[in-house]
Amino acid sequence: MLNKISELPIETPAFSWKKAVWGQDLKVNEWIQSIHHLNEEEGGKHWDAVMMGVPISRSSISASGASEFPESFRRAWKGFNTYNLDEEVDLRELSVVDVGDVKMHFTDILLSHQNIKDAFHGLTKEFSGSIPVSIGGDHSITAMLVKGWKETYPNEEIGILQFDTHFDLRDLKDHGPTNGTPIRNLIESGTIKGENVFNIGLHGFFNAPSLVECAKEYGVNYITLKKVRKNGVKETVEQALHTLAGKVDRIYLTCDMDVLDIAYAPGVPASTPGGMRTDELFEAVYTAGLHPKVGAMDIVCLDPMRDGVVQPTVKAGTHVFLSFMTGLAMRKK
Amino acid sequence: MLNKISELPIETPAFSWKKAVWGQDLKVNEWIQSIHHLNEEEGGKHWDAVMMGVPISRSSISASGASEFPESFRRAWKGFNTYNLDEEVDLRELSVVDVGDVKMHFTDILLSHQNIKDAFHGLTKEFSGSIPVSIGGDHSITAMLVKGWKETYPNEEIGILQFDTHFDLRDLKDHGPTNGTPIRNLIESGTIKGENVFNIGLHGFFNAPSLVECAKEYGVNYITLKKVRKNGVKETVEQALHTLAGKVDRIYLTCDMDVLDIAYAPGVPASTPGGMRTDELFEAVYTAGLHPKVGAMDIVCLDPMRDGVVQPTVKAGTHVFLSFMTGLAMRKK
Amino acid sequence: MLNKISELPIETPAFSWKKAVWGQDLKVNEWIQSIHHLNEEEGGKHWDAVMMGVPISRSSISASGASEFPESFRRAWKGFNTYNLDEEVDLRELSVVDVGDVKMHFTDILLSHQNIKDAFHGLTKEFSGSIPVSIGGDHSITAMLVKGWKETYPNEEIGILQFDTHFDLRDLKDHGPTNGTPIRNLIESGTIKGENVFNIGLHGFFNAPSLVECAKEYGVNYITLKKVRKNGVKETVEQALHTLAGKVDRIYLTCDMDVLDIAYAPGVPASTPGGMRTDELFEAVYTAGLHPKVGAMDIVCLDPMRDGVVQPTVKAGTHVFLSFMTGLAMRKK
Amino acid sequence: MLNKISELPIETPAFSWKKAVWGQDLKVNEWIQSIHHLNEEEGGKHWDAVMMGVPISRSSISASGASEFPESFRRAWKGFNTYNLDEEVDLRELSVVDVGDVKMHFTDILLSHQNIKDAFHGLTKEFSGSIPVSIGGDHSITAMLVKGWKETYPNEEIGILQFDTHFDLRDLKDHGPTNGTPIRNLIESGTIKGENVFNIGLHGFFNAPSLVECAKEYGVNYITLKKVRKNGVKETVEQALHTLAGKVDRIYLTCDMDVLDIAYAPGVPASTPGGMRTDELFEAVYTAGLHPKVGAMDIVCLDPMRDGVVQPTVKAGTHVFLSFMTGLAMRKK
Amino acid sequence: MLNKISELPIETPAFSWKKAVWGQDLKVNEWIQSIHHLNEEEGGKHWDAVMMGVPISRSSISASGASEFPESFRRAWKGFNTYNLDEEVDLRELSVVDVGDVKMHFTDILLSHQNIKDAFHGLTKEFSGSIPVSIGGDHSITAMLVKGWKETYPNEEIGILQFDTHFDLRDLKDHGPTNGTPIRNLIESGTIKGENVFNIGLHGFFNAPSLVECAKEYGVNYITLKKVRKNGVKETVEQALHTLAGKVDRIYLTCDMDVLDIAYAPGVPASTPGGMRTDELFEAVYTAGLHPKVGAMDIVCLDPMRDGVVQPTVKAGTHVFLSFMTGLAMRKK
Amino acid sequence: MLNKISELPIETPAFSWKKAVWGQDLKVNEWIQSIHHLNEEEGGKHWDAVMMGVPISRSSISASGASEFPESFRRAWKGFNTYNLDEEVDLRELSVVDVGDVKMHFTDILLSHQNIKDAFHGLTKEFSGSIPVSIGGDHSITAMLVKGWKETYPNEEIGILQFDTHFDLRDLKDHGPTNGTPIRNLIESGTIKGENVFNIGLHGFFNAPSLVECAKEYGVNYITLKKVRKNGVKETVEQALHTLAGKVDRIYLTCDMDVLDIAYAPGVPASTPGGMRTDELFEAVYTAGLHPKVGAMDIVCLDPMRDGVVQPTVKAGTHVFLSFMTGLAMRKK
Repeated sequence: MLNKISELPIETPAFSWKKAVWGQDLKVNEWIQSIHHLNEEEGGKHWDAVMMGVPISRSSISASGASEFPESFRRAWKGFNTYNLDEEVDLRELSVVDVGDVKMHFTDILLSHQNIKDAFHGLTKEFSGSIPVSIGGDHSITAMLVKGWKETYPNEEIGILQFDTHFDLRDLKDHGPTNGTPIRNLIESGTIKGENVFNIGLHGFFNAPSLVECAKEYGVNYITLKKVRKNGVKETVEQALHTLAGKVDRIYLTCDMDVLDIAYAPGVPASTPGGMRTDELFEAVYTAGLHPKVGAMDIVCLDPMRDGVVQPTVKAGTHVFLSFMTGLAMRKK
Repeated sequence: MLNKISELPIETPAFSWKKAVWGQDLKVNEWIQSIHHLNEEEGGKHWDAVMMGVPISRSSISASGASEFPESFRRAWKGFNTYNLDEEVDLRELSVVDVGDVKMHFTDILLSHQNIKDAFHGLTKEFSGSIPVSIGGDHSITAMLVKGWKETYPNEEIGILQFDTHFDLRDLKDHGPTNGTPIRNLIESGTIKGENVFNIGLHGFFNAPSLVECAKEYGVNYITLKKVRKNGVKETVEQALHTLAGKVDRIYLTCDMDVLDIAYAPGVPASTPGGMRTDELFEAVYTAGLHPKVGAMDIVCLDPMRDGVVQPTVKAGTHVFLSFMTGLAMRKK
Repeated sequence: MLNKISELPIETPAFSWKKAVWGQDLKVNEWIQSIHHLNEEEGGKHWDAVMMGVPISRSSISASGASEFPESFRRAWKGFNTYNLDEEVDLRELSVVDVGDVKMHFTDILLSHQNIKDAFHGLTKEFSGSIPVSIGGDHSITAMLVKGWKETYPNEEIGILQFDTHFDLRDLKDHGPTNGTPIRNLIESGTIKGENVFNIGLHGFFNAPSLVECAKEYGVNYITLKKVRKNGVKETVEQALHTLAGKVDRIYLTCDMDVLDIAYAPGVPASTPGGMRTDELFEAVYTAGLHPKVGAMDIVCLDPMRDGVVQPTVKAGTHVFLSFMTGLAMRKK
Repeated sequence: MLNKISELPIETPAFSWKKAVWGQDLKVNEWIQSIHHLNEEEGGKHWDAVMMGVPISRSSISASGASEFPESFRRAWKGFNTYNLDEEVDLRELSVVDVGDVKMHFTDILLSHQNIKDAFHGLTKEFSGSIPVSIGGDHSITAMLVKGWKETYPNEEIGILQFDTHFDLRDLKDHGPTNGTPIRNLIESGTIKGENVFNIGLHGFFNAPSLVECAKEYGVNYITLKKVRKNGVKETVEQALHTLAGKVDRIYLTCDMDVLDIAYAPGVPASTPGGMRTDELFEAVYTAGLHPKVGAMDIVCLDPMRDGVVQPTVKAGTHVFLSFMTGLAMRKK
Repeated sequence: MLNKISELPIETPAFSWKKAVWGQDLKVNEWIQSIHHLNEEEGGKHWDAVMMGVPISRSSISASGASEFPESFRRAWKGFNTYNLDEEVDLRELSVVDVGDVKMHFTDILLSHQNIKDAFHGLTKEFSGSIPVSIGGDHSITAMLVKGWKETYPNEEIGILQFDTHFDLRDLKDHGPTNGTPIRNLIESGTIKGENVFNIGLHGFFNAPSLVECAKEYGVNYITLKKVRKNGVKETVEQALHTLAGKVDRIYLTCDMDVLDIAYAPGVPASTPGGMRTDELFEAVYTAGLHPKVGAMDIVCLDPMRDGVVQPTVKAGTHVFLSFMTGLAMRKK
Repeated sequence: MLNKISELPIETPAFSWKKAVWGQDLKVNEWIQSIHHLNEEEGGKHWDAVMMGVPISRSSISASGASEFPESFRRAWKGFNTYNLDEEVDLRELSVVDVGDVKMHFTDILLSHQNIKDAFHGLTKEFSGSIPVSIGGDHSITAMLVKGWKETYPNEEIGILQFDTHFDLRDLKDHGPTNGTPIRNLIESGTIKGENVFNIGLHGFFNAPSLVECAKEYGVNYITLKKVRKNGVKETVEQALHTLAGKVDRIYLTCDMDVLDIAYAPGVPASTPGGMRTDELFEAVYTAGLHPKVGAMDIVCLDPMRDGVVQPTVKAGTHVFLSFMTGLAMRKK
């Protein structure tokens, strides 16, 4: 299998993993294995989850360093244990492999997008029993990831659970497939149906009225943060998943870090006041991770270069990933 | 030649007021009109609200760059749409004009104060059907603004709704009309009655006991943040407004950004832990905007120079303004 | 000549302890007295509380400037009044003396630790009717402070109320008495019993499974932040204190500032997302301050060097101290 | 009503182009005229220089916010007078117009590049007697600007004077026309000859050996900073210009802000230690401005988002522009 | 009890004036004595220099926290020894006393200015044999300090040696006695003659042409930084002092920290590129300190709030003071 | 040999290297090989230089994160090519291996120090033909490194070339082997003679007079920065090396990053104004690298945690290493 993977447009990041001792206590960087340090046999075993970096941000509307997040994400691992004290579960019950980063072209954005689609299609084909997690990059990647997923499961209906401050329903005719367009891209390309999208967490003055109309026209479901808080985070996510599960075969979870409040997430190009708290997002993502139909996830629009030396947003993004993994681990029980 | 140039792929940069196209989607900088770009006829029409900058902070007790907020405020507009997703209202239903900044003298603070009073009196006389919003500047300006308002409506009773961590009841005999004195200034000058002040959001160790005694003596009503949270933000503000409305003709809303917690508002000279969250303040201000007797507003004590490159407090201050506008827009419905 | 100078419009700068005028309003730096400015008679009077700095952080696992907190703490005093508006109590009802900082050796950590123990034992012996508060420094100091306290009360049972994101139960055999070990240190040395420890506020992925096992083995009680929020902060702390009070003679409160969320406390070496808010911590500490058996307190692991120019964590740490003092003041009523 | 308002003590805020009063003292923002505020007659007059923004950085190899510099540049103008004290010349002797920014596409980089070329060609055709200055954006724009210039003067030989830490001779086959390729792009497209390039200021470990070989192969002239300092900045630039002037008809000056030392220019994506001081760059650019054959200029690779609140690099970039203008003004004498 | 406490391993924290032990090595905070810690006899002895804080910045044209510098200055002392390695002189050969800060009014700037004048007049009368050094505050204070000095020596001619990027010759009629006016203020009030001013270090685009004309009209001598560097810093200062000494009885040295380059002095409200390096300023000030007619000094326009946590400008400002003291100490030899 | 190395107290840092392709262009992270990625045969070959991390800073007098520099140093490699444009030399002519970091104990500083000595002794014994470079860590490590070196060459005389703002001659009796003591430690232990130390770059007020006396007593040679600049950096270093070479067998180069000016090196705990520029230090270190008797080097006291997101000091420290390597490479020619 390693041979097949090595044919995909994926390359090794210049960064490292520590070979796990598998003793009692592990840090996340000792738990997640790099495919480049494995032999054919090790690499070919079953993995519960497979992680891939998607380091692109030149498709972002505003200037963004989200391309740097995959590296910052991996570097943050050593600050986290594998044990989740809240749920009393050890993530080591899951096996996770890191296959590296999608190859990017510096000036041909559409080629980079094609690489993302090809890489995700190849990955989900080779690791057909694993949950793939993509670490962006800006939100434009979600369109390509879901298209690649659809290619792997052409006869299945895909639903989207989205945590976001924005609709991401901008018109592709204006500026092409930017980070403002992925949901519209997927609907207009026939990859998904608008009614199979649930967008949770929108608020304030950050969406133009034409996008609201577009959401209504396409039947996109959206629940503002105010309503989320009235119904409860867990309950809202469960209801959305329940509805989706009745209509689709697989659910894709996309987590735009700009859903968070600027006080919690300064390291996001378009961070805003009035957004979610991190504990709410962790609960939302964990709840999604529990659901058996949620089969893929991405984390996007986190720019480590705006995050100062303390790096609160990088830590939050890493925690989002681990909260989702906790859901996966609980599923197995 | 200008015609030929206009055929080139060159466009006007959007760093100042952008003449609105009045198409479907607008940013706030395209919605609010500058009076300096209007002709006599345009300028003379009815405006729902009129905005004025008050760039003074040399009257602040502690060193402050609050004088820079009007400029930062206007620059932040382009990061906000006119559509409020939570209330499903488009602010374009309101017309708003920006008349510029009050002229300030660099060393004669009392003259600057007089200018503020004269400007606000003139403004509220000329734009008698409009809601005026003043963007500070430090809190000393509120005394002059309300005095100017009183001059416009000499026979009416004015009430104050204040969101603040402090009483602002310091003795003017100590250091003159600083940002620690506006409420006392208004009471002692007979402009308002102490009992017609509601101060909401105080907390912690940030008021001397003599000021508490002063508040009691003058009958100033105050509700600590702890009590606000027990009763609900919306309910507390509604009750205060209800009580005030029974006693006064017009209510002035003054929003000191230091009411916010330091985690949400680092860009405030005297920011403190234990304060309000931004979502609470947005709800409070929106609720005030809904009330028919609330006829003027100011936002004070926001220092953009302490706000770093991410500018969370500048964004929060801008959102406060838009939350108030949302209340106004809902009033019309 | 000094007389003539004192007639000029010149005043003492307030950057160190200011001799209190005991007039109506006081800042905290005018209220807390430095023992070095007192004569024998003044120093020998009864003090309700006594404060000591413990400026060590070379015993911290990760690089830390927590040794700088005692100085930053004292400097922050002038930003706080003695009056607590929420509880309507004036801290001047308590008398507090600052005895200075424990002497530290730059390369002999065990000697520094011995000094901490000796200083605290001596202090609690001399000021036997006072509540001692120690300002760290990293968490390693808690082991030495409690040992010194035990020396003063050798026949009494001591309980620990801990606010922390971590267990601090690491094995001393690995790297000696670091800031990851104080609770284990105290249990294994027989100073306290594991069952007499209540750790409140843990969350997320910040404790290895071996430490959870160790906590269970030693019978350490722990309540995750999620559970705290379900039961209420006040209720959780009261219950823990109630249980402890039934088993021990004296309760030591240790407050590791890393219990706070990174958005509220960037100035902590190991700050994490998903932690406590400051208002929750203030309430927890205040509740502890109310309990008659809580007889000593420390604040640890606050690194002012990571706190930027706005210093939110330094202000929060100072507020924690004052919230505890408020509890003490309420006890007297 | 506008008349009455204009009698109030209110003034226009100076945060955008301020219509010049042409009195004795002017700030740069009052001196440079925006074409969008001019009528056909005003716009059609002769201008000594014409300025255009080129807000693109998605063609940058590393993540960059250089697209934000045109806006920051214009905002910095109000911090500078028109009078140069060192040379005792007032820039008002020159007339300068700002035509706005080149239109950019968000995902089609080649289309954006085409726009740059078309805009510059059109501009230099219409303003044939003016010196055009382009404000980037990343260094990829230089290739398109010079190509557009060549289109205006197809029968003339163009030379390049480059201040840079890098050769910018990367192979376009690798990643297309990034900011690492402009000089190679121009040579390989036949727009200029390698021997007509003078690159001044290179140093250290920031160029791969293959690029040095490429420079030698194409005959690109380069002078390291060490050698510049041995010969003198002024003398080096004069010699380079003298040599170039003997071979070409027009000289294009391109100033990559990464030529500066990281201590002087933190706001550059690839800033390095060991680079030029700002006073050296100002002298270099001024010297270039004096030469009659230097007919166009650009400033590139300045990222205001890394420049903190103090903005030293934005100020330096603005000064570079004014130093060049000083040279132009001296030419006229 | 104090005796027993003093036997514990506890020491006084060094965050305020530390009573000197007069042993072999001293930090600056142990060398400079606070007048408030001295008795009548100690205070009445001869002092070589006397230092006074002037914490005002509300007279600054742009928003400034220069009022905070006296406190930051004193706090920085503990980072400096008294021994100057370059000149091999120990500052302990001088005795220096700190008399505290001038009392300021928060809104009556003219009253604050009057206090500055009165305090300096009284000080220089009482400490007639001492060199007074004033620590600002913004540059407006220099006018009041020199007026106070003139009052002490009414029959003597005073000259000014100024290190500055600006002329400070703005018209007082525009905005009163701001930090842009002190030199004009002194000339127009007849306190000094224009020809007895030497301004050294001006550069770039930071002075309006009307100010240059004003300088010429009043006969103010000025030497740009470029010329300083051609002639040598030491030589330039010596020549200026030599010329001045032939015409005046006493020379006042005023050091505006904005003379420094922004790379060295970010903590200045109007910091600019192209300015002096710190080593040049230290040499300039030291050279001035050597001259027997230089009888007073001030340091102005340093805003610690823009100086980040590393505080390079605060350290530079402190070093400027010590460089001047070194000159004084060498004078005695 | 790998076996022997693996017995030393050295461990792999959790960080990676990219296996070099050895094509035409290499980044430094592709050029330096990690011993942990080599097999026995590869590891046993001759290496021109061997690099070791020494991550300790708890022996620093002031709070320091210098322990984090080895990791930051390795991460910075990818920003540098192997080709030095100034000297036209490619560092690939040298082979360099990274053996990892010395094992540290968290609370037993003397044990950590012993590990440093043992590791360096073992390393220089095994790699007897290689130049060892140690990356600190604080300056206390130099004493242990030179002692370990002496153990390898017990019969040879060792000289020290030191670039520093301080003497580092503090008395070990006061606080043990801190970063203020290494030179005294080496002299008093008889490892080196005081007369065989050349300290270059001292300046200002950063050394107590007792240390100057100590330097004189021990015959330590020191040259202030002012004198360095008079004689020329290169000339000064050459003269010092020439003198040393006449007296000793081997010269150890220790580079304390605090020798740099605070404007160039904010990321140093005790950074000061008035220090060296980076280009001067690069030249000094390069000159030392050229000399055949310079046989080992260290870089100390660089704290990446104070270096902000731009990391100028980390980049400067990495350049210092590469400048030294350039000298080595030139030696071979």
